[in-house]
Amino acid sequence: MRNQSRVVIENIYPQVSGGTLPIKAVVDEIIPVHADVLVDGHDVIAASVLFKHEKARNWQEVRMAPLGNDLWGAQFSVEKQGFYEYKIQGWMDHALNWQHGIERKIEDGQHVNSELLEGAEILENIKKMASKEDASYFEQLQKDFRDESAYEKAVHEAVSEKLHHLFTQYPVKKLANESEPLSIYVDRLKARFSTWYEFFPRSASKEEGQHGTFNDCLDLLPRVAKMGFDTLYFPPVHPIGEVNRKGKNNTTEAHSDDVGSCWGIGSKEGGHKSIHPDLGTEADFKKLVSEAKKLGIEVAMDFALQAAPDHPWVEEHPEWFKWRPDGTVQYAENPPKKYQDILPIYFESKDWKNLWDEMLSTALYWIEEFGIQVYRVDNPHTKPYYFWGWLISEVKKKHPDVLFLSEAFTKPKVMHQLAKQGFTQSYTYFTWRNSKNELIEYLTELTQTDQQWFFRPNFWPNTPDINPWALQGSHEATYLQKYFLAATLSSNTGVYGPVFEYMQGAALPGKEEYLDSEKFQIRHWDWGIENKLTTLITRINELRKDHKALQQTNNIKFLTVENDQLLAYYKYDQQLESEVIAVVSLDPYYAQNGWVQLPLEDMGISEGHQVKVSDLITKSSYIWDKEWNFVELHPALPFHLFKIEK
Amino acid sequence: MRNQSRVVIENIYPQVSGGTLPIKAVVDEIIPVHADVLVDGHDVIAASVLFKHEKARNWQEVRMAPLGNDLWGAQFSVEKQGFYEYKIQGWMDHALNWQHGIERKIEDGQHVNSELLEGAEILENIKKMASKEDASYFEQLQKDFRDESAYEKAVHEAVSEKLHHLFTQYPVKKLANESEPLSIYVDRLKARFSTWYEFFPRSASKEEGQHGTFNDCLDLLPRVAKMGFDTLYFPPVHPIGEVNRKGKNNTTEAHSDDVGSCWGIGSKEGGHKSIHPDLGTEADFKKLVSEAKKLGIEVAMDFALQAAPDHPWVEEHPEWFKWRPDGTVQYAENPPKKYQDILPIYFESKDWKNLWDEMLSTALYWIEEFGIQVYRVDNPHTKPYYFWGWLISEVKKKHPDVLFLSEAFTKPKVMHQLAKQGFTQSYTYFTWRNSKNELIEYLTELTQTDQQWFFRPNFWPNTPDINPWALQGSHEATYLQKYFLAATLSSNTGVYGPVFEYMQGAALPGKEEYLDSEKFQIRHWDWGIENKLTTLITRINELRKDHKALQQTNNIKFLTVENDQLLAYYKYDQQLESEVIAVVSLDPYYAQNGWVQLPLEDMGISEGHQVKVSDLITKSSYIWDKEWNFVELHPALPFHLFKIEK
Repeated sequence: MRNQSRVVIENIYPQVSGGTLPIKAVVDEIIPVHADVLVDGHDVIAASVLFKHEKARNWQEVRMAPLGNDLWGAQFSVEKQGFYEYKIQGWMDHALNWQHGIERKIEDGQHVNSELLEGAEILENIKKMASKEDASYFEQLQKDFRDESAYEKAVHEAVSEKLHHLFTQYPVKKLANESEPLSIYVDRLKARFSTWYEFFPRSASKEEGQHGTFNDCLDLLPRVAKMGFDTLYFPPVHPIGEVNRKGKNNTTEAHSDDVGSCWGIGSKEGGHKSIHPDLGTEADFKKLVSEAKKLGIEVAMDFALQAAPDHPWVEEHPEWFKWRPDGTVQYAENPPKKYQDILPIYFESKDWKNLWDEMLSTALYWIEEFGIQVYRVDNPHTKPYYFWGWLISEVKKKHPDVLFLSEAFTKPKVMHQLAKQGFTQSYTYFTWRNSKNELIEYLTELTQTDQQWFFRPNFWPNTPDINPWALQGSHEATYLQKYFLAATLSSNTGVYGPVFEYMQGAALPGKEEYLDSEKFQIRHWDWGIENKLTTLITRINELRKDHKALQQTNNIKFLTVENDQLLAYYKYDQQLESEVIAVVSLDPYYAQNGWVQLPLEDMGISEGHQVKVSDLITKSSYIWDKEWNFVELHPALPFHLFKIEK
Repeated sequence: MRNQSRVVIENIYPQVSGGTLPIKAVVDEIIPVHADVLVDGHDVIAASVLFKHEKARNWQEVRMAPLGNDLWGAQFSVEKQGFYEYKIQGWMDHALNWQHGIERKIEDGQHVNSELLEGAEILENIKKMASKEDASYFEQLQKDFRDESAYEKAVHEAVSEKLHHLFTQYPVKKLANESEPLSIYVDRLKARFSTWYEFFPRSASKEEGQHGTFNDCLDLLPRVAKMGFDTLYFPPVHPIGEVNRKGKNNTTEAHSDDVGSCWGIGSKEGGHKSIHPDLGTEADFKKLVSEAKKLGIEVAMDFALQAAPDHPWVEEHPEWFKWRPDGTVQYAENPPKKYQDILPIYFESKDWKNLWDEMLSTALYWIEEFGIQVYRVDNPHTKPYYFWGWLISEVKKKHPDVLFLSEAFTKPKVMHQLAKQGFTQSYTYFTWRNSKNELIEYLTELTQTDQQWFFRPNFWPNTPDINPWALQGSHEATYLQKYFLAATLSSNTGVYGPVFEYMQGAALPGKEEYLDSEKFQIRHWDWGIENKLTTLITRINELRKDHKALQQTNNIKFLTVENDQLLAYYKYDQQLESEVIAVVSLDPYYAQNGWVQLPLEDMGISEGHQVKVSDLITKSSYIWDKEWNFVELHPALPFHLFKIEK
């Protein structure tokens, strides 16, 4: 195929999956783009990034700058939610090429009469695009270029900064080439910055032995708000199956008073669009969601696509489940393990289109009827990837504010694919990363590789499913360290409530599972207790709100400290308006000290420059005027969070 | 968009420029392919690579194996010249999934009656695809699976290797997904393995002061063949312009007896389709090309798209050149430098389609009328990339045997883009890589990065344009080292003839240019001389022909030797039928010794295994039964080339 263009555009960055899926951003984020833009020979070219919101009519343009070795770069800001497109355009810039050539020749002492005549010709096209004022300037230039008696003046004008600037302002794009457009999905800020608290509403009662209700939850809202959480996530609130119900501590025989796992959804009381009668009414739930909103809290629901054997779907839509030749229904299994209280949805069903529609309708129901804006999706990795791609995009078409957190603790490529298909946030391996090396390696992977463009981490020190070895039987210092790490390394963070806050780390023997897990029984908590953890979690959450540097995960640089028990990192926002340095001791038993190296170059300062660092927790402040600075941390307060004032 | 498939295919390797351009291979090369193939949940999937030659009707299939972490791999061999397509297919393998599940349950002691009934159902579809014999076996299995009294037998058959094998043989591809096809361009072997010799035909005369002719060249063919060269490359053989002709040593004033630069093509004697009358007639050239072929030598022509000011094109097609407002024609320049003897082709011309056609017609003329099969393309980086993409593909459509060597010594991405557009081979930076680190780093880049799939290096120690610093005023040992490195590191290699062989390194002061360069004048050589270089070049070329390990560039592994003056590398062919180890001293003055580490793992042996290494040049052989082995090299013969016998 013939193509006369002389410009080749390649290796556009960022892009996800060869450009087939969008990169992720939030409103007002700055997108840095670069690409190889090549021409044959020595002629001068120019390049732009063109971008537009899906609903905008016209492309916006930002000129790229050459970064050396045929790499070009530019950046632009995305200001609205929804899809953006961006593409690269490159062209022969005959005007700039002419000016570049004439400059070299004049330096060499050559006579450039013929070149001035060429310049006059080049101006002919540019003149047509120009403002009236600029056009008349060009007109005058043309006269000078063609007038041998004005040679000195003409030469002076030919190489002027002013003319260079005008050439850039009125590019004549000859033999231009353009890349295929790539896409960005822009979310509201909360996609990148959120602070989650999880508790089981059925454990919310003040009375021991009572089933908690939404009204009990209502009373707890001020506590959650005061602690600085903006998202309150509830495990499923639907009726719980009675057939094959699980007993306490995941036993297969349930007693008559056992409440069952709330993930075993559906009974004669209803399914995914119903509320467990013991929690209250639809009106109670609506009230809870709206009262929470008044306190700055969004209630996140669990979207768990599976059914108890007595879920109404089983009778109404038997084709949505897999039936075996012996007439029994297929329960969940991962041979040889069996989960008889759960029926997986049969996504290979011939009736899959209706099935998908009902799943979408379920998601929309809670959004449209109850004002839910955040879903935590249970085990998304056991449902097809393309199903999620479709469901999330259908929801966001109508409700772009809705966010989806992927609860997939599984193989890396599976977690990544779910994120690529549209999940706003993802659970991570942070829960199991303890040593300094592990943390640096994991954060580097999340923030410095392509993952930064599609995988938004949400760091949880624990969940109802994971009572990590590191927290089992551990000290207060460990809990403090874990929350501080989660909340300052990642701008999305969450904690599974009272169990963490009150340090209830008792486990099933040999398992990373909680003993007497709330997954299978009601627990009673004295919500009035406020301890050191409560206090420091509150303070850390407050600091996250005050400091933009903590509202993004990718802007991080680990600092050298010659001590394996001390982890130090510099975080900053894209405009460098907010900068912090965190130093954490990973040792829960002993004091640790060391020398932290300031990232002078990243901070744009040189050695000797005085920097005031103020610990945002203790309010102590220090003047650092050296590159290396001493720190010492004790288990009683195992971290510094320094605000930097230059 | 809804898609019920549960399989996602991503990150297919190899591919070039996001799959938009073909990877390169030669006939019988093995292509290793891998890709991420993912499914949700725990079900068993399977994947294949499908591939076909452009002219084949049906896809061939090779099953992929899981390599861990959702990566799958396979390989296949390309057997014919031309384009191949390949793509990845992944599907739910219900049969293998069923067998995997039943195995786990039986191990766990579960009763699998219901599973056997499922197996009987699964066999129903497979039976339809099977051979008569296999179908009747499946029939029997179904009976057994449904017969409770045959339970023990049925279980035994259900988990049998035989059934596993049959399931693999008759895959039922449910909810399959397929990647977009990628392409491979397959060349004849010479694309990857070639040995070039360059001389100027006008310097071929036995008589000093005489203009050499094609008939003189005829007499030199046996010498070139005896030295083991298979490609004889001539600088342009066309009439040379007289207007602004360059004098000796690139002076701007030519004397009446100056022959001019043969790259200043075109005069009243003709242009790109004519032969310089002093070299002989068309018949002479035809005879030379065909006689060379009889000796196993292909004559490579220079394809240099530019014109002397008196080239017939200038008058016949003025629109193919750029005319300035003062009425003069634009000569070549790279401001402030001027090249008044050369007019560049104006590729931005409105008449570009006719221009492209004429360029193609020129290439085809020498191929079709004279039997030329190899072009060395002069300065391709000063003509548009897409022009080359088009021209090379048009030529190869009709003449797939034709090869193009890109003479671009310029920025890396420019060289890469030319290769991606279809150049068969490329000149490289080898000419300037001297130290051990430089060589290892450069070869690693060429062979271990994506470059291996599109950029086929051709290593030249010198060219008429480059008399590298390292060869200027150097010793015989340096010449020996350079040729050995070029010819054993790279399977494509070439040398600019007598200047190298006779070590004529005199340079223009302060430049990497030859003094009295043949580019601007006739030189006289005593072709009868055979020196140590002649002898060793001959031997090295012979060994390249005998050892497949030396006929490919990418299969290389550098070996540890704790001496910066010793470079050791292991080379092997894809079938491990040929293995060599090269050790080179980079020191031209002193003896160097050190201990070389054998690559035991790559060689598939363990320490203590006796290996016979035979120096293919000196015929000495040694038994190595340790991992580390002593070598010592002297400037008199600064390399070993060991054949390995295990």
